[in-house]
Amino acid sequence: MSGRGFPEAEFAARCAKAQAKMAEVDLAALVLTSEPEVRYFTGYLTRFWESPTRPWFVIVPASGKPIAVIPSIGAALMGQTWVEDIRTWTAPDLRDDGVTLLAQTLREVVPEGEHIGLPDGHETHLRMPLADLQRVRDDIGGRKIAGDAGIMRALRMVKSDAEIAKIETACAIAGRAFARVPEIARAGVPLEEVYRRFQMLCLEEGADWVSYLAGGAEQGGYGDVISPAIDTPLTAGDVLMLDTGVVWDGYFSDYDRNWSVGSATPEVAGAHAALIEASDAAFELAKPGVTAAELFHAMNDVVSGGQGGTDAGRLGHGLGMSLTEWPSLIAMDHTVLEAGMVLTLEPGIAVGDKILVHEENIAITHSGARYLSPRAGRELPVI
Amino acid sequence: MSGRGFPEAEFAARCAKAQAKMAEVDLAALVLTSEPEVRYFTGYLTRFWESPTRPWFVIVPASGKPIAVIPSIGAALMGQTWVEDIRTWTAPDLRDDGVTLLAQTLREVVPEGEHIGLPDGHETHLRMPLADLQRVRDDIGGRKIAGDAGIMRALRMVKSDAEIAKIETACAIAGRAFARVPEIARAGVPLEEVYRRFQMLCLEEGADWVSYLAGGAEQGGYGDVISPAIDTPLTAGDVLMLDTGVVWDGYFSDYDRNWSVGSATPEVAGAHAALIEASDAAFELAKPGVTAAELFHAMNDVVSGGQGGTDAGRLGHGLGMSLTEWPSLIAMDHTVLEAGMVLTLEPGIAVGDKILVHEENIAITHSGARYLSPRAGRELPVI
Repeated sequence: MSGRGFPEAEFAARCAKAQAKMAEVDLAALVLTSEPEVRYFTGYLTRFWESPTRPWFVIVPASGKPIAVIPSIGAALMGQTWVEDIRTWTAPDLRDDGVTLLAQTLREVVPEGEHIGLPDGHETHLRMPLADLQRVRDDIGGRKIAGDAGIMRALRMVKSDAEIAKIETACAIAGRAFARVPEIARAGVPLEEVYRRFQMLCLEEGADWVSYLAGGAEQGGYGDVISPAIDTPLTAGDVLMLDTGVVWDGYFSDYDRNWSVGSATPEVAGAHAALIEASDAAFELAKPGVTAAELFHAMNDVVSGGQGGTDAGRLGHGLGMSLTEWPSLIAMDHTVLEAGMVLTLEPGIAVGDKILVHEENIAITHSGARYLSPRAGRELPVI
Repeated sequence: MSGRGFPEAEFAARCAKAQAKMAEVDLAALVLTSEPEVRYFTGYLTRFWESPTRPWFVIVPASGKPIAVIPSIGAALMGQTWVEDIRTWTAPDLRDDGVTLLAQTLREVVPEGEHIGLPDGHETHLRMPLADLQRVRDDIGGRKIAGDAGIMRALRMVKSDAEIAKIETACAIAGRAFARVPEIARAGVPLEEVYRRFQMLCLEEGADWVSYLAGGAEQGGYGDVISPAIDTPLTAGDVLMLDTGVVWDGYFSDYDRNWSVGSATPEVAGAHAALIEASDAAFELAKPGVTAAELFHAMNDVVSGGQGGTDAGRLGHGLGMSLTEWPSLIAMDHTVLEAGMVLTLEPGIAVGDKILVHEENIAITHSGARYLSPRAGRELPVI
């Protein structure tokens, strides 16, 4: 298990990389509002983001450390990070929830006529009221808010060794929990009980929290992979799938495992073997210089049937501070892989009117790829 | 325990209320993008929102059922709800992630020259890329996107009996877990182990998942209430606080409990008694016609010291499909209470350089209020 937190040098390096990219595209500051963006530059880790009430802002200036413009309830915790300039207001404030303080700080940090970058592209959201963004725009006279030119995407997509170590710890925790599924799942146990007990196993094996669990269990496959649990008991002939995102020190695992309740039909056994073959094919291909699209095709050639055999829309994705990140393993994503990227390989296949999905987590290294999840075997385990 | 889901009449009533309010303010449709907003009108319940990749849209037209404009991965699950008109695209699509499909649907549903409401006020976020919103604006020729005039706030703030029953179930689950804390917490146990074991207790007692856990444990109080766990062992003289949001069928509890590790000092014991006195004062006052501000003052008069004695910024808030909702118990929130509102009472108090915070969950009834959480006693329990 790696240690918690990061040395200050990690944040300084992230900041310097951002500032170099900002200089290239003439951005005098970045304004960040979402959990992973704020944490990326500050190390500010809390589950308090679950409360949608209060906005939080971090400004990355053209040089120097980030500036936090946050509700006073977060001052003590932000004070434990490397950030020195922490400006607070008493939130919630129904008339002015940080708007004036943010605008004032931007006027101070950004010269008139310059541009401020706000992430606005694919897989980003603005985490503040839309009406308040307009008020900020109106209150920064002579400065313009633009997009972030993909800077956050470019930075977060390539992980440091310390980040990968945290993801690997999360993957190992999930792996130990998956290995114990036969303790909690058997014919007759309601699926919702399996979900509950599986989350307990993840916690017992060391997860800080379990941010994601989905899956399915139906005869010969499942209908989709994002449904919550139902109270139907497991039955012989079901394929049980559990897909979990456990969090350790703010980093996610995201992979699944399948089990057959009683012995599997030849169709189901063959489908599972094909899924392993598909993820193996992508794994063998994965190295710097290969594209996300090429990994998609390597898997899709095995599972075929159009969009990878299911309606998931992709066969894998990035992974890190969020359950899913850039890039997408789809035909139109030509992102070139680099050492330090962390990906899920997630082929799906149709079996009659059901589907099976398999998922592994890998890190791209200088010479190829390595598994962060304990690679599953071709044979579908029986419970 | 109440049953899962809602009868279709619940969604029809929500829709009719929204449409009546829309007519009053000349909105020909609402466009909703966030998890609770989408679920409010559809019943679409999944943890898949943890993935920030794909946008999801629901349109509430001037009359008739909501229309879902969603990624194909959600079609099967959305098909199990009362929604009939489900339009999908294969997401992620790097060139057009639902933008054209959303704009086309809006052109079909909304007459030219009319306004479309998008929640933009306090405690709301737009869950789609900001650049894509601009593309939608540019592609709905002759129709204008405006705010939602507070319609979502007004609707969600007053709960149905069926919603309150779900919150009560979540509160009962948390209550059983809190009652078992002496099983897992004692001097010598690291706080992070307490967090882990407490989440397991919540699951064992029936939580679907544990979306929120924060707290603290330090000598004579704690420094803040939003920090993640650290590995410091509990020590005699610590005050341990656990504040949890457990989810049952998509509805939250949100309350905390305090314990003294070994016997409490008179200062700490007195502070805890004052907190109970404060929440009691607000509870006694709470009924339709009273304002959120009046509840704040009832508590603040007991704990005094400015903003309720801590830097939390408020002394309670709404609760329901999100961990925190409107209104805020602050001096400037003059929201008039109505039967069906669910609130937390959350007074805080300073004890030297530390704080103590206590929290209960209540529902406003026609004649007063009732506890959804099992009200804590004045005496600080000792572990």
